[in-house]
Amino acid sequence: MEVKNRLLNFNKAIIYQNEDWFKFSLDSVLLSNFVTINLSAKKIIDLATGNAPIPMLLSYRTNAKIYGVELQKEIFLLGKKSIIENKMNNQIELINYDVNDILTMFNFESFDIVTCNPPYFRESSKRIYNSNQIKAIARHEINLKLQEVINIASKLLKNKGIFALVHRPERFIEIIELMKKNNIEPKRVRFVYSKYGKESNILLIEGMKNGKSGLKVLQPLYIYNEDGNYTEEVEKMFGE
Amino acid sequence: MEVKNRLLNFNKAIIYQNEDWFKFSLDSVLLSNFVTINLSAKKIIDLATGNAPIPMLLSYRTNAKIYGVELQKEIFLLGKKSIIENKMNNQIELINYDVNDILTMFNFESFDIVTCNPPYFRESSKRIYNSNQIKAIARHEINLKLQEVINIASKLLKNKGIFALVHRPERFIEIIELMKKNNIEPKRVRFVYSKYGKESNILLIEGMKNGKSGLKVLQPLYIYNEDGNYTEEVEKMFGE
Repeated sequence: MEVKNRLLNFNKAIIYQNEDWFKFSLDSVLLSNFVTINLSAKKIIDLATGNAPIPMLLSYRTNAKIYGVELQKEIFLLGKKSIIENKMNNQIELINYDVNDILTMFNFESFDIVTCNPPYFRESSKRIYNSNQIKAIARHEINLKLQEVINIASKLLKNKGIFALVHRPERFIEIIELMKKNNIEPKRVRFVYSKYGKESNILLIEGMKNGKSGLKVLQPLYIYNEDGNYTEEVEKMFGE
Repeated sequence: MEVKNRLLNFNKAIIYQNEDWFKFSLDSVLLSNFVTINLSAKKIIDLATGNAPIPMLLSYRTNAKIYGVELQKEIFLLGKKSIIENKMNNQIELINYDVNDILTMFNFESFDIVTCNPPYFRESSKRIYNSNQIKAIARHEINLKLQEVINIASKLLKNKGIFALVHRPERFIEIIELMKKNNIEPKRVRFVYSKYGKESNILLIEGMKNGKSGLKVLQPLYIYNEDGNYTEEVEKMFGE
């Protein structure tokens, strides 16, 4: 069922979603807050943008032109609708296209920043997800694999451009290897913990194309307090 | 100046140190607590053991035979003295030898666990450390480089054996690459933070030789409370 939600608590922006497919998640909010955006940034692209939460959230941080690429037409259309209703269509351009083919549409080395909240899960051999294909493609590496995301990001990025990714910590080693292989040097990492005392369940990582080595592991980010509410830091991201 | 300190607060074990060279550090305590030791472990080796804090600390967790290798005779002798005074000489054997040559002394694939708290700093081109060579060799990669530590560890380890390292987070990417190159799959990582709100300044990492991929990022470890005292977790490691 299609619903209209507030994008953030503190403003009037909305986001259209369809609860049968997926709703924009905390991960997108975390990544949008995490990524380094220089004042000089002119062009940003969000790969596998879904219903476009990341382009919309980034628009509060920068005047750069922001592109979002989404393969699935139904989800793309939701994003389009939100962006028009939020009057963000001057700054944000959504493209209904396969990320795997995006290099036919943009020049190599033309972006300052590439962001991505990709499908997290390896393709299941059992195909248990057949019943809801839209959701499955958004969550599983059916159409878009991590190695493609990072390879394409590297090609899209200018020299010293920034790639920022949200993913699962269990795939951290693979992410590092793929970034190195594609000349993106990991520079900042932040591990996110659902609550105190648990293993990390979300990874935020940023690298620089042709950057110098030297990683910073930022302070941990906790999502929930012991009382089950969002921590102050997460509250601030959503707006109180 | 040579001094005799308590190894841990809760017991009578002592450790001889020379304050002009270095004192055993929190890092050794952290690593000794972090490393996974199975009940089946029979042989453990600590590379670049210094005055042997890690072998002594591990002896409280296992009945395995523990070897420690230290190149610098002055420091080796301090370790030897502590181990004899602590009556740990049945379990712990210290060897005054160059880690780079240790494979001439032990069989390949003969250890269940390899630990190391290596020199952290890249060799300084300025050689500002000439004034205190013993300290310099313990702290800088003059004689023992990270790539050698990991290569030798891999050769010493049995199949599915455990390698545990304490190091600096800024060299995390390099550590991951070297572990992968030497068939040690990173399995557990814990980032240590001096205090809340700061970047991580110590990295604990453990890998398994020929292990399956899949990394766990454990909960963060904080050293100091806001009042400047050790956190409860660190207090427990030292014994209250």
